[in-house]
Amino acid sequence: MSDDRREIHDLVLRYCRGIDRIDLDLVRSCYHPGAVDHHTGFDGPVEEYVEWLRPLLTSKSGGTHHMIGNHLSEVNGDHAVAETYAHATHWGGPEDSPKGNFTTGVRYVDHLERRDGRWGIVERWAVREWVRRDGDSLSAAKGTLARRDGTDPIDNLRAQVL
Amino acid sequence: MSDDRREIHDLVLRYCRGIDRIDLDLVRSCYHPGAVDHHTGFDGPVEEYVEWLRPLLTSKSGGTHHMIGNHLSEVNGDHAVAETYAHATHWGGPEDSPKGNFTTGVRYVDHLERRDGRWGIVERWAVREWVRRDGDSLSAAKGTLARRDGTDPIDNLRAQVL
Amino acid sequence: MSDDRREIHDLVLRYCRGIDRIDLDLVRSCYHPGAVDHHTGFDGPVEEYVEWLRPLLTSKSGGTHHMIGNHLSEVNGDHAVAETYAHATHWGGPEDSPKGNFTTGVRYVDHLERRDGRWGIVERWAVREWVRRDGDSLSAAKGTLARRDGTDPIDNLRAQVL
Repeated sequence: MSDDRREIHDLVLRYCRGIDRIDLDLVRSCYHPGAVDHHTGFDGPVEEYVEWLRPLLTSKSGGTHHMIGNHLSEVNGDHAVAETYAHATHWGGPEDSPKGNFTTGVRYVDHLERRDGRWGIVERWAVREWVRRDGDSLSAAKGTLARRDGTDPIDNLRAQVL
Repeated sequence: MSDDRREIHDLVLRYCRGIDRIDLDLVRSCYHPGAVDHHTGFDGPVEEYVEWLRPLLTSKSGGTHHMIGNHLSEVNGDHAVAETYAHATHWGGPEDSPKGNFTTGVRYVDHLERRDGRWGIVERWAVREWVRRDGDSLSAAKGTLARRDGTDPIDNLRAQVL
Repeated sequence: MSDDRREIHDLVLRYCRGIDRIDLDLVRSCYHPGAVDHHTGFDGPVEEYVEWLRPLLTSKSGGTHHMIGNHLSEVNGDHAVAETYAHATHWGGPEDSPKGNFTTGVRYVDHLERRDGRWGIVERWAVREWVRRDGDSLSAAKGTLARRDGTDPIDNLRAQVL
């Protein structure tokens, strides 16, 4: 894979990690300043998007799992287009009712630009396609090791090894 | 990744885009002429497969989302074998009943060949493994931006940037 | 992609194939001897992990489908950290009751080491995050071609082409 395509794929992976671990600096670092995000329920610059996200994520008693699959990017000079499929699972809260438990199928359509040698999103359409209400059938795994406060196993291992 | 493996992965990604956006020329371009497809409900040459697909896809009021994950390819000269995992979500119609709402787990097992420098599928087994009936819990996302007539955000962005 | 990252990704792909096809030699080959696995219900060396797995897998009348998505690895000399998202679908048995039908969302957090030029897992945390009970809605696909006895289409094709 070209280095450009690898960097763009890694960027989308870091976005997902940032959301799911509530590391919003990591989320923001995937965009260039002033980038625009079109999201269900939000439409505006990334700086405001991140602030809009924060209470949504922290109010969830469970968590989110942004699983991505298909990632197809095309580079044209300092610009690129990428389409990334995702299944986003949400469980627990805000009100801890079954309404907080759902999965949605999304395609992230990204316009990226290379500035000063670094790729970043300049405009994103989070194209939500379907929603599945998972009600009482979805729940947190008992005794999970997952954390969203910087002490998840991935955080601990990265601190130890890298 | 070797260029061969990258090309093969991209081919499988284009197949999924072709199905989900109903771009059947794109689907056909993933196969060599005369290639054979073994699909649940279909068994024969790709030219007939594409014509069999068309009414199935266009009669759906909702859409399809062919999310792929694991993709493991092995190259042997001008031949290759690839296994690709997929979750295929189908929502809406034909009859717009809950029966039209289901997700299926599949492994695409592909025999590929390089002809005139271009990789293409020569035989595919779409190994369907499980089916989950999603009934009334699955539905189209309200106000979705997704389109299957050439005006999806990915189509618009590609036309603008590439 | 660097060769290291490619090798590590392929290793995780082979792990999933090994589990889903019940090829436990393939599973074991993804770890270095003495590696430790932390799994829901198991905690110990890989040699014991594989023996613990065997009856769980063979007693299922249906099967398992370990779909992976996000895979983000970072290499530091002869050590590496990788995080891999997965949706693991389980259907059928042991008792063929709806309890045997569930999907779980996991992140594999892996510490890998390169020994004698070969990457292998030395410690894995299978961080299970959510569980969805799929009850009667999930079932084996009728007439599936999938096999777990070495005669799956992927086995047959590999034997023929590679």
